[in-house]
Amino acid sequence: MIELNDLPLRDELKGVRPYGAPQLDVPVRLNTNENSYPVPDEVVDAIAKAVQGELRELNRYPDRDAVALRADLAGYLGHGLTGANVWAANGSNEILQQLLQVFGGPGRTALGFTPAYSMHPLITTGTGTRWVDGLRAEDFSLSVEHALAQVRKHRPDVVFLCSPNNPTGTAMPMDVIEAVAAEAPGMVIVDEAYAEFARPGTPSALTLLPVYPRLVVTRTMSKAFALAGARLGYLAAAPAVVDAVQLVRLPYHLSALTQAAARAALGCAETLLGTVEAIKAQRDRIVAELGSRGLAVAASDANFVLFGGLADSTAVWRRMLDHGVLIRDVGLPGWLRVTAGTPEETDAFLAALDRSLS
Amino acid sequence: MIELNDLPLRDELKGVRPYGAPQLDVPVRLNTNENSYPVPDEVVDAIAKAVQGELRELNRYPDRDAVALRADLAGYLGHGLTGANVWAANGSNEILQQLLQVFGGPGRTALGFTPAYSMHPLITTGTGTRWVDGLRAEDFSLSVEHALAQVRKHRPDVVFLCSPNNPTGTAMPMDVIEAVAAEAPGMVIVDEAYAEFARPGTPSALTLLPVYPRLVVTRTMSKAFALAGARLGYLAAAPAVVDAVQLVRLPYHLSALTQAAARAALGCAETLLGTVEAIKAQRDRIVAELGSRGLAVAASDANFVLFGGLADSTAVWRRMLDHGVLIRDVGLPGWLRVTAGTPEETDAFLAALDRSLS
Repeated sequence: MIELNDLPLRDELKGVRPYGAPQLDVPVRLNTNENSYPVPDEVVDAIAKAVQGELRELNRYPDRDAVALRADLAGYLGHGLTGANVWAANGSNEILQQLLQVFGGPGRTALGFTPAYSMHPLITTGTGTRWVDGLRAEDFSLSVEHALAQVRKHRPDVVFLCSPNNPTGTAMPMDVIEAVAAEAPGMVIVDEAYAEFARPGTPSALTLLPVYPRLVVTRTMSKAFALAGARLGYLAAAPAVVDAVQLVRLPYHLSALTQAAARAALGCAETLLGTVEAIKAQRDRIVAELGSRGLAVAASDANFVLFGGLADSTAVWRRMLDHGVLIRDVGLPGWLRVTAGTPEETDAFLAALDRSLS
Repeated sequence: MIELNDLPLRDELKGVRPYGAPQLDVPVRLNTNENSYPVPDEVVDAIAKAVQGELRELNRYPDRDAVALRADLAGYLGHGLTGANVWAANGSNEILQQLLQVFGGPGRTALGFTPAYSMHPLITTGTGTRWVDGLRAEDFSLSVEHALAQVRKHRPDVVFLCSPNNPTGTAMPMDVIEAVAAEAPGMVIVDEAYAEFARPGTPSALTLLPVYPRLVVTRTMSKAFALAGARLGYLAAAPAVVDAVQLVRLPYHLSALTQAAARAALGCAETLLGTVEAIKAQRDRIVAELGSRGLAVAASDANFVLFGGLADSTAVWRRMLDHGVLIRDVGLPGWLRVTAGTPEETDAFLAALDRSLS
């Protein structure tokens, strides 16, 4: 039987492990920033009906251009966007991969500022693009001056900004995004996967699209819309950017079931997004509770909280797991990340944390 | 407003058009080798029930490894395969892209023999892999000698074989596949998208998997299973190959809905595959009818027929369209491809052809 190392893998994949959080069967799972609230009955019924309507003609390929879904997504986003501004794929990971295939690739460079979403460098190198890490400050902040200096130094073909940033949770100041968009010679991608959870007064980079034609904002239905299982990510940008990703998208990449389910969910947006305020309340509660324990806590505009000041974060992570609460070790020594979910999950998290720290 | 050409596209994408057959609203669509039979009620009900069972927990990410689905696919394939031998993705295009990301990429070469599936070179170059065309003979055949000579000359990292071959329709002799598998220094992919339609006595390359550890067979549920709209492609290979693609797959690439729908359909395999014999009968009828008209016809093991001897194939394609029958101009001057569907579609195709040729 042939072994992995005997196969002619690309050199850079040798010794690599597949990306992904541990999939463990634990009572309280707060490790992948899922929305803890199950899909409400009203939405279940709407999606079931929409999917049912597709089944008999599944023998036919889906709409390759997902025209109706893109129009619905644009309607949800607002800001004067239309379906021509929007593209959709199987999760925002696929959106990012398509963008890198068009605007990155061999001989090109993408710049990011870590710690940020850990798939950004993986998708970058997976498309043969060179990854340059501009790094954040010790306190995870990113100043206009530092961001601009990195852009000027590396002249990247693609810049990744992540706002609210994962795993830190903090939204990026608009002046940083604007400065990078004005200076960058190539494409600027603002990953707004967690935008719906931002604190009041936090603007979206969508407001900048009319000004910066090489700006792309990516979103997902996995978080605020509670549809991680349906895999629907999307982007908003100038129509020419949508034309561009169509040059590399695999034909019929988005199933008829996905398109129908996402459209039905968008039709119930108000109901689905009803959990957002409750989650934000738990997020703010976690921030306050951790602060009162003397821990370091990053300001959060997302459905998760990064907290630090832990002498041995890996040991704390392990003890939390022993107490039945799975959180995320994001590879930052001294820090851990927890998803904000239901009040009961916050109770369980805080109780397990107190036992793990004592 | 920015235009496509003003964006910093990769050089090789400049001037390219998105891949895909024209999507036209025509009474008889025989251009994309869909299965013309709608999904039977029994299967519609089974899929609806399976999907319904997933909806409430769509807030959670799907099984990243699609373990249950892969076991079901292995059970369908037989040949002693298990879930460890199988990997699934959103259509076999995504499977092929993942294989090229692991085993191809910048500095590596993939060899194919055209005319074959036109996505093979596109996915190859889309992953930064160099494409080398070994070409087939004038009669679309591929001899052991020619195939081996091309493998020895180019020492490709990946070889694409397509059997039954698209667009010609003919299955590849096993001695060609075996000779290439024995000689190739890298991976050998046999694209068997149309395997279920092969004429009696045509073996599958699945039988060679125990002998050639770098052999990969790809399949799809889009054709014989009549599930083009659900987007489910898969591969069978040594377990190490499955481990390898997991190094590059996007995490949670396959939605919970897709996994559930595909499993439900596999549970109804006998019913779904019930259309295969009827389609093969129409395929054989088309071959005979075209032959009796003095046209050149490629032997077909698929659900389509390539026919030639047309002085102006593009004009014939256009006249067919005017008569309400959409077939495929695959870019081979003098030849056109038609999907075999229902008896009524064959009637309409032959009638339109006779009018178009007269």
